[in-house]
Amino acid sequence: MPAKGVHVAEIADLVIAGGGVIGTAIAWRAAAAGLDVVLVDPEAGDAASLVAAGMLAPASEALFGEGALLRLNLLAVRRFGSFAAELEEAAGRQVGLRGEGTLAVAYDPGDYAALVRLTAFRRSAGLDAEELDSRACRTLEPFLAPDVHGGVLFGGDWSVDNRRYAAALRDAARSAKVRSLRDRVLEVRVSDGQVRGVRLADGGDIDAARVVVAAGYWSGAVGGLPEALRTVVRPVKGQLLRLRHPAGVPPVLSHTIRAIVRGTDVYLVPRADGELVVGATQEERGPDQTVTAGAVHDLLHDAMSVLPVTSELILAETCAGLRPGTPDNGPVVGWCGPDGLVLASGHYRNGILMSPVTADAAVALLTGQAPAPEWEPFTPQRFTGTDPSR
Amino acid sequence: MPAKGVHVAEIADLVIAGGGVIGTAIAWRAAAAGLDVVLVDPEAGDAASLVAAGMLAPASEALFGEGALLRLNLLAVRRFGSFAAELEEAAGRQVGLRGEGTLAVAYDPGDYAALVRLTAFRRSAGLDAEELDSRACRTLEPFLAPDVHGGVLFGGDWSVDNRRYAAALRDAARSAKVRSLRDRVLEVRVSDGQVRGVRLADGGDIDAARVVVAAGYWSGAVGGLPEALRTVVRPVKGQLLRLRHPAGVPPVLSHTIRAIVRGTDVYLVPRADGELVVGATQEERGPDQTVTAGAVHDLLHDAMSVLPVTSELILAETCAGLRPGTPDNGPVVGWCGPDGLVLASGHYRNGILMSPVTADAAVALLTGQAPAPEWEPFTPQRFTGTDPSR
Repeated sequence: MPAKGVHVAEIADLVIAGGGVIGTAIAWRAAAAGLDVVLVDPEAGDAASLVAAGMLAPASEALFGEGALLRLNLLAVRRFGSFAAELEEAAGRQVGLRGEGTLAVAYDPGDYAALVRLTAFRRSAGLDAEELDSRACRTLEPFLAPDVHGGVLFGGDWSVDNRRYAAALRDAARSAKVRSLRDRVLEVRVSDGQVRGVRLADGGDIDAARVVVAAGYWSGAVGGLPEALRTVVRPVKGQLLRLRHPAGVPPVLSHTIRAIVRGTDVYLVPRADGELVVGATQEERGPDQTVTAGAVHDLLHDAMSVLPVTSELILAETCAGLRPGTPDNGPVVGWCGPDGLVLASGHYRNGILMSPVTADAAVALLTGQAPAPEWEPFTPQRFTGTDPSR
Repeated sequence: MPAKGVHVAEIADLVIAGGGVIGTAIAWRAAAAGLDVVLVDPEAGDAASLVAAGMLAPASEALFGEGALLRLNLLAVRRFGSFAAELEEAAGRQVGLRGEGTLAVAYDPGDYAALVRLTAFRRSAGLDAEELDSRACRTLEPFLAPDVHGGVLFGGDWSVDNRRYAAALRDAARSAKVRSLRDRVLEVRVSDGQVRGVRLADGGDIDAARVVVAAGYWSGAVGGLPEALRTVVRPVKGQLLRLRHPAGVPPVLSHTIRAIVRGTDVYLVPRADGELVVGATQEERGPDQTVTAGAVHDLLHDAMSVLPVTSELILAETCAGLRPGTPDNGPVVGWCGPDGLVLASGHYRNGILMSPVTADAAVALLTGQAPAPEWEPFTPQRFTGTDPSR
């Protein structure tokens, strides 16, 4: 990105506020559809996208009773592969897709009961699930603790290296002539009910008839959004760890492990380059991004409970990010308020997974088409009570 | 320090190999005594000195039965205050000395039995020790866990901010005209039984009739040392954590806490600037300096067992260093091998504490005087079996 204050063109077809995976995916696809796009973000490395683990799993405990969200997730899973292939082609780099599947394991009998419920739910969505006893789990993953009670293999799950994916999106956007600006969108400028552009924190303006706000947990702070949407998206803090294998030690995992340890969820996601991501907390602490001793302890403790060899790995990085949460855990994507303003936020724990279908939906709206029907329950109008067609 | 390859004078009275607190303290005092000193170290920030916690406690479990080492430690404690005062004056900066004392606590009855033994040992050395029940411990430190079994207040213990202390030594050395060179001493050059100088890794030479090897765990790798000394000093890995208080949270500790938690030692050392150091592992892993998941977990677990509020602190840094250990846990300071060669290493867990008396001893040797008698049992000759007078 050019440094803050560098001159850029002050007119565009589309301005996108937010350079995480959602904003960048929209920018790339919109530019590929022929729009002249400016992507505005105050920094390159601060987004929730970079703290994520990159699991591409369509159903979790959080989705019980949320059938509409499950349908959207299933659409997102089906779309991810073709989108990633096109992205790798456009960016000329790999995104670290892995298809070994998820091995969900339960630490004790109570955890196993919870896992059985999750399995029934996933089967009801038509997903593969193979129940395994403790010994069969260790056949798949020999380093699992012998006292793991049992598990379920979700063979269809994928994962992606979120940092490679985000970097590929940036490269693809750049190749598609998206102009990136390191600044913050203070407000969307509106007159006569029509978007006119944005005002930037450094004082400059960009004129554009269409604006997408994709600023994650910060989206509500962008001026010009309808009042009812300003508090819909809240930060949900997540802390995670990046471990690495010592020199000469082969990978200790091949599958993503999703474990329930005495009622607490922990996941371990292996990368092709030897990294092992361990996550994640979910904390309601406002916009606090500090790494705390207690969270690191608990993640390590739970990871070591199911995979004792974790203790021998190198603790390479601890980090914290802020997921954009909403009252019903669903994203908020669609027209809102003045003509030309699209909100694309609230992806909570599924931002990576949903970025392709969100880009599809946003570009459909911006080019006068209808998004996939799975998006209908997730317009901003469910919070504003107005007509979702604009 | 000048960058590697920058020209420096090739003649000096004294070359010191190693720029940790031992080498730098010797350099400062030797320069103050009138010697022209060159201090050689490959880097500024890699030393065990920077990973230390800075406890200045004269006796620990490790010293049972080591009466000579205890006497040396007591000398070191008595000397530290006057040395630090002179250092602060010379460097024009504070070193973060704290005199609140150590509160040793025991987590369970078995730990308490170990603490009682330590207390008797410290009393036998003439040190103050006040036994406290669990309630009295919490009166001194209200955030201690209620299930701490009991404790002992060692009122005479001090601590120092090891990083401020190391920085002050560097400043004082610079003020005393010590010349610092970022390079590595490959070998001590000797002919006709007399030191002639050193050969550097970048290929240069420095001529000097006296050389001090103070290269910590690496000391045995410096060429020119007698063969019998090459394997005396080994690396003992220590991992520790630096925690910080979140904004607006007052300090959770005033005393250094030394805890025995189910047989494991952990210490928590508060700094005036809000830092809390938690340490330390002791691992025989050769020269491995990686931070491991298991060590971080265990340190956090033990710290949270005695001080639960630790979980709310920010995990600001994890680090690993290599202490210079010896077969009898004592330092190795004195003339060795060819005329003009002094070894000053093997300070193990007491490098910060012993740096003043080590500087005194080395400067005494270099200027033709006798070190304090407490040093007699700690010459290199106990390993080489030769006459300690040279």
